[in-house]
This record gives sequence, structure tokens and C-alpha cells, in this order.
Amino acid sequence: MHALEQKILTEGIVLSDQVLKVDAFLNHQIDPKLMQQIGVEFAQRFKAAGISKIVTIEASGIAPAVMAGLELDVPVIFARKYQSLTLKDDLYRSKVFSFTKQTESTIAISKKHIAADDHVLIIDDFLANGHAALALVDLIQQAGATVCGIGIVIEKSFQSGRQLLDEKGFHVESLARVKSLTEGQVTFVREESN
Amino acid sequence: MHALEQKILTEGIVLSDQVLKVDAFLNHQIDPKLMQQIGVEFAQRFKAAGISKIVTIEASGIAPAVMAGLELDVPVIFARKYQSLTLKDDLYRSKVFSFTKQTESTIAISKKHIAADDHVLIIDDFLANGHAALALVDLIQQAGATVCGIGIVIEKSFQSGRQLLDEKGFHVESLARVKSLTEGQVTFVREESN
Repeated sequence: MHALEQKILTEGIVLSDQVLKVDAFLNHQIDPKLMQQIGVEFAQRFKAAGISKIVTIEASGIAPAVMAGLELDVPVIFARKYQSLTLKDDLYRSKVFSFTKQTESTIAISKKHIAADDHVLIIDDFLANGHAALALVDLIQQAGATVCGIGIVIEKSFQSGRQLLDEKGFHVESLARVKSLTEGQVTFVREESN
Repeated sequence: MHALEQKILTEGIVLSDQVLKVDAFLNHQIDPKLMQQIGVEFAQRFKAAGISKIVTIEASGIAPAVMAGLELDVPVIFARKYQSLTLKDDLYRSKVFSFTKQTESTIAISKKHIAADDHVLIIDDFLANGHAALALVDLIQQAGATVCGIGIVIEKSFQSGRQLLDEKGFHVESLARVKSLTEGQVTFVREESN
């Protein structure tokens, strides 16, 4: 997705050859118009999949997921990273290890908001090792629901997540595929479909 | 806002005479079309204020804030509740006590994303005692920026927050004003402007 790649090139900050900081438009400050374009793009790529619900993780997944939900006209659920007082229902839980933060956390969604007949699109801001995506897959499969696809805003293609998800047979669509962050430069995977 | 009040009446759950659970469309599952209507309504109410930036708190403030940002064509910043590895910049910090969770946490925004000449609209999902809103005001004022207004999705008018913010002279707009949650029933404050 050209507009997203341009935004990464102009406003992304390469912190190391592993870490790309996009706090200027996605992870802290959010560019609403870019999120809308991202939502339209996800909807375009997954509209044939019969999606009934979108699942993401707080907090940075929410903006792109809600914009995709608006386009696809389906509800969005964000998995919570902790159990709040008002989230007491029976929960599906899964553990996820954050590459960025080097911590393990438990994510959860309420059983009442996902059903066995749901066809779910997972959306997340980053794909690195795939741990977050697989934890979301786990939550959805606990409900007996179907994972129809995984939409990623920024994929770090030099880490193992994409290959892992491909090998498991998931339909993955990443709007920007970062090939490398070496020497402070962002380079992208070039595909015919881009 | 009629559509929001109707949603609260049909899908909100009164957990006690203090706690209204809206996990079906705002705090866990999100209704994207309702969020869009909320964004349009906030933009309508604050469009004359010369807003240059919206500030909210993760996670439930993000969806309504991004929709308002889309309408007002301004960036959105969400204050983070913890310091992540990629959020290392100089930060403005403030403490906030959560009524719902009965815990104190530190929220922070990066100094680089807010400037002294910013005219800021604060958006949050709930207004109870006003602690979260005042912590956001504190962050914005640390930057020397101007708080132009505070937009709340659901105000619990029987708690002290609204009066506190009014007394401090802020322009507060709440899209649903809950007068009472007694006996398991939601009743709303009736205003001419509703």
C-alpha cells in the first residue's frame, strides 16, 4: 500500500535493525485519514471472505480495525491485556509474548461476543514473530469460530511470523512488508500485487 | 445523542447503581457505525473551537477519538498507561485514579507530539469523577498547549466529574448524560439541546 509505505519512509524511525518506531501515525499519535485508507484496503482484500467479526488487540490495533469494521459493516472486538472490573464474564484467554516489550501477558475476550458461527478477520498493527496473531487465533478457535484471514498493517518480513502464519495456511495480507531495517534504512518487499 | 442513548438502553448492562457496562459496543466490542456517528457529533459540537489535535487515553477512547479526528481532520494522540520500549522520548506524565478499577496508574504522552500552540480537544469514553479528564488536562497544560474542550461519550452525571470540569471553566460536551442507574434502570438527564 503506497500511502502507508510513504508514511513509514517519511515519519517512521528506525531504532535498530529490529525495531521500527511508528509513534507518529500509528502507535501513539494516529493519522485518522491514513487509518481510513487502511480500513478501505483491508475491506477490499477480505471482502470476499464473508467476515462477520473483526478481532484485534488493544491498543494500537483498534484504529485500523475499527476503520476496517466500518467498511465491512461488522463489529470489532479488541482483546484486553488485563482483566478489568467490568470484564467479569467468562473469558477466552491466551498468553502472548511481546517481542517489543520482552514481556509475557495474558489477553482475553469475552465469550459472549464471539460465537461458533463467526467468521473472523484478525487485524493487528505489527507482525513480527507472530505470537500476538497466534494468541488471537487461539482465542477465536477456543470459541469454535473460523479464522478467515489475518490483516497486518506493518509486517517485519525479516522475522519469522509471516512464514509461520503462511505455513499454518492462514490468508495473510500485510499492507506494508518491511524487508530490512539495516543501516537505519527501511526497505520493502516488492510484490506484483503491490 | 439519541442513537447512543438507544444503544445504552438496549445493550448496556447496569452492574450496580454506580457501574454501567457497555462492553457490547464501546469498551470491548465496538460498533464502528455508532463510533462514526459519535465522531460526526463531536466534530459538530467542537468545530468552531479551532481544534488542532485530539488527545485521548488507551484503549476505549481510541475509537471515538479517531472518528472525531477523521471528521475534524486533525491527528489523534492516545496517552499510554505504561511506558513501552519504543516510547522512550521525553514524556509528559500524570497520575490517574481509575474509579472502575480502583487503581492508580501513570499516563504519558510524548513531548514531541504536542506543542505549545496546539489547541486540544480531549475525548474519553466515560466521565465519572473526572480524574482521567483532569490527568489529560494536566498533560496538555504541561506542554503549554490550550485545552479547547472535553468530549465525553457517556457521562455519569450523578458523580462529581461534570460539575468539577464545569467549575474549572472547561467546555464539556457529553453525548449521553446518565442521571441514574438505580434499580437496574438507566435514566438520562434531559436537556433542551438533546
